Amino acid sequence: MQTVTVALGERSYPIFIGEQLLGQRACFEPYLAGRQVCIVSNETIAPLHLAQLEKTLAGFDITTAILPDGEKYKTLATLETIFDRLLAARHTRKTTLIALGGGVVGDMTGFAAACYQRGIAFIQVPTTLLAQVDSSVGGKTAVNHARGKNMIGAFYQPRSVVIDTATLATLPAREFAAGIAEVIKYGLIVDADFFGWLERSMPALLARDSVALTHAIKVSCEAKARVVEADENESGLRAILNLGHTFGHAIETATGYSEWLHGEAIAVGMIMAVDLSARLGWIETSVTERLIALVRAAGLPVKAPAAIAVSRFIELMQVDKKVLDGKLRLVLLKALGEACVSDAVAQPLIESAIRDHCE
Amino acid sequence: MQTVTVALGERSYPIFIGEQLLGQRACFEPYLAGRQVCIVSNETIAPLHLAQLEKTLAGFDITTAILPDGEKYKTLATLETIFDRLLAARHTRKTTLIALGGGVVGDMTGFAAACYQRGIAFIQVPTTLLAQVDSSVGGKTAVNHARGKNMIGAFYQPRSVVIDTATLATLPAREFAAGIAEVIKYGLIVDADFFGWLERSMPALLARDSVALTHAIKVSCEAKARVVEADENESGLRAILNLGHTFGHAIETATGYSEWLHGEAIAVGMIMAVDLSARLGWIETSVTERLIALVRAAGLPVKAPAAIAVSRFIELMQVDKKVLDGKLRLVLLKALGEACVSDAVAQPLIESAIRDHCE
Repeated sequence: MQTVTVALGERSYPIFIGEQLLGQRACFEPYLAGRQVCIVSNETIAPLHLAQLEKTLAGFDITTAILPDGEKYKTLATLETIFDRLLAARHTRKTTLIALGGGVVGDMTGFAAACYQRGIAFIQVPTTLLAQVDSSVGGKTAVNHARGKNMIGAFYQPRSVVIDTATLATLPAREFAAGIAEVIKYGLIVDADFFGWLERSMPALLARDSVALTHAIKVSCEAKARVVEADENESGLRAILNLGHTFGHAIETATGYSEWLHGEAIAVGMIMAVDLSARLGWIETSVTERLIALVRAAGLPVKAPAAIAVSRFIELMQVDKKVLDGKLRLVLLKALGEACVSDAVAQPLIESAIRDHCE
Repeated sequence: MQTVTVALGERSYPIFIGEQLLGQRACFEPYLAGRQVCIVSNETIAPLHLAQLEKTLAGFDITTAILPDGEKYKTLATLETIFDRLLAARHTRKTTLIALGGGVVGDMTGFAAACYQRGIAFIQVPTTLLAQVDSSVGGKTAVNHARGKNMIGAFYQPRSVVIDTATLATLPAREFAAGIAEVIKYGLIVDADFFGWLERSMPALLARDSVALTHAIKVSCEAKARVVEADENESGLRAILNLGHTFGHAIETATGYSEWLHGEAIAVGMIMAVDLSARLGWIETSVTERLIALVRAAGLPVKAPAAIAVSRFIELMQVDKKVLDGKLRLVLLKALGEACVSDAVAQPLIESAIRDHCE
């Protein structure tokens, strides 16, 4: 088992990474606030892993809240059903929520924990690669609004994150690839060596080789932990974690959060952002070419749907949270392994970078 | 103008108290995060004060969200309408919410600010006495759930609180009295001298004498500020602010949050809590008698409705947030002006204290 610590003073917490951790009581018990526990999962994940987690926590007073599966249920209305379960079972402020599932379950459970009785403990148990390397670490919690993704939420840290690589065995190939998109992101923004390692190791990762997977997850979590430690509430540096996200969110919003997986949209978004960095002359064009090859090798899309007009794309990007006082702030690359934020890119350049990577 | 500071490190903020402060740009401008402002008010208060506040903030990019009036609208669904206004007008993370209204508007606006894009600035402009001396200070924000009051929320501090005593001129007598209930509470829990001052000054307060009012609001805000400073997230001392609230919330829940005003329910709840303290031998019976006389002098009810059975009363109290691991924790008095918390009171004693103060 590997452990990565997110150092945030009194809100510090460990990330445990390894095989069969769902069966390890020691990964959970020290992080529970009291005897009451509510496991939040969804209809897809619960049949696979809930029984094992309940067995591991035998003796605790366990309630479960099983949500419908899908990003379209990441709403205030679904959150209300979690609160309903908690109140019906008389959960007090000393209860602990456990998020068992992917990013949607984790984001909603974390936000529920932030809000229930003004804040209770919670533990992340991410079961998708995307959630393991991204959303379960760093304390961003949220639900969507019809007018924009993750518009309602809180910064709220978990007590621990338990990453059981065995849960990836049942992950569909498309979702696995979507997780790889975020792994690639860490190579781009903070670690050129890791980018090179990914180019060499993509076949092993796609074969879900456990040694390769553990390494990729650990390096990703460490990279994210260092950025979050420097900027917990996203007032500066943390924005670099959003490489490709402003472009990607536009794709997700335009397609109603249903056709495209988050990681797929981010893969294309990263290509647009890296291409734009090359157009600005900040990096070699070869970086864009290497990225497109790596994204393609991962089985991810490299172009946005033709149906989204460039003007609509820009409009959707402007609703993104990264917009400050009307200016579009974009995460770009200064070099492979080094990101920066700019709000001074000319719109025609942005439009070109979008247009060249639409079908 | 009087100023009380709530000292919470980087989250510190001033409370301005005085006449005609709605017209003072200096009470607002330094506390706005950017050019965008969204004033949240309700259908009763907006016609009275919105135009003046908009005039004071001339030049800013102002959006308004006018909510229906009433505790029954203090829900996640209403919150969603605030988010809808903000997103439709493209408010960014640099916007500022201004809560113009009573406790319901303040609690919802504060919670909306805590959640919108994971946290934006907000200013409290309380227009009821209850909100001025209680809910607008201290950062408790929330909405109700069908199963319990204030069950969903956050600790989230405003940038400033602007208390314009002129807004009390139009406050209905019943709501004014409800605010007096919380003013009396500060005398009971932290300041015996202030309790004596209230006994002498109740006629002046009810006549809305501005000198008496300003003094009562200032002492109340100072008392609350000191308690909040010592325990921002209610892990200990802050619980004393809930004197009478566990009893009172049971009355509010049983009557569907509609027949009884919060302050009315708290008035009866305080009588029950003080009576229980006397039954435990901690204070003289004369304190209960003085409290009943003062509550009656303020024009507040002194008995709960007969329709709530004692067993139902206890059941509703057990859903209250102050319950930890199944134990009922009650705020009681060790002396006039000194509160404490106990979870070791025998249930028959609690039942007697309830029964004797039901109609």
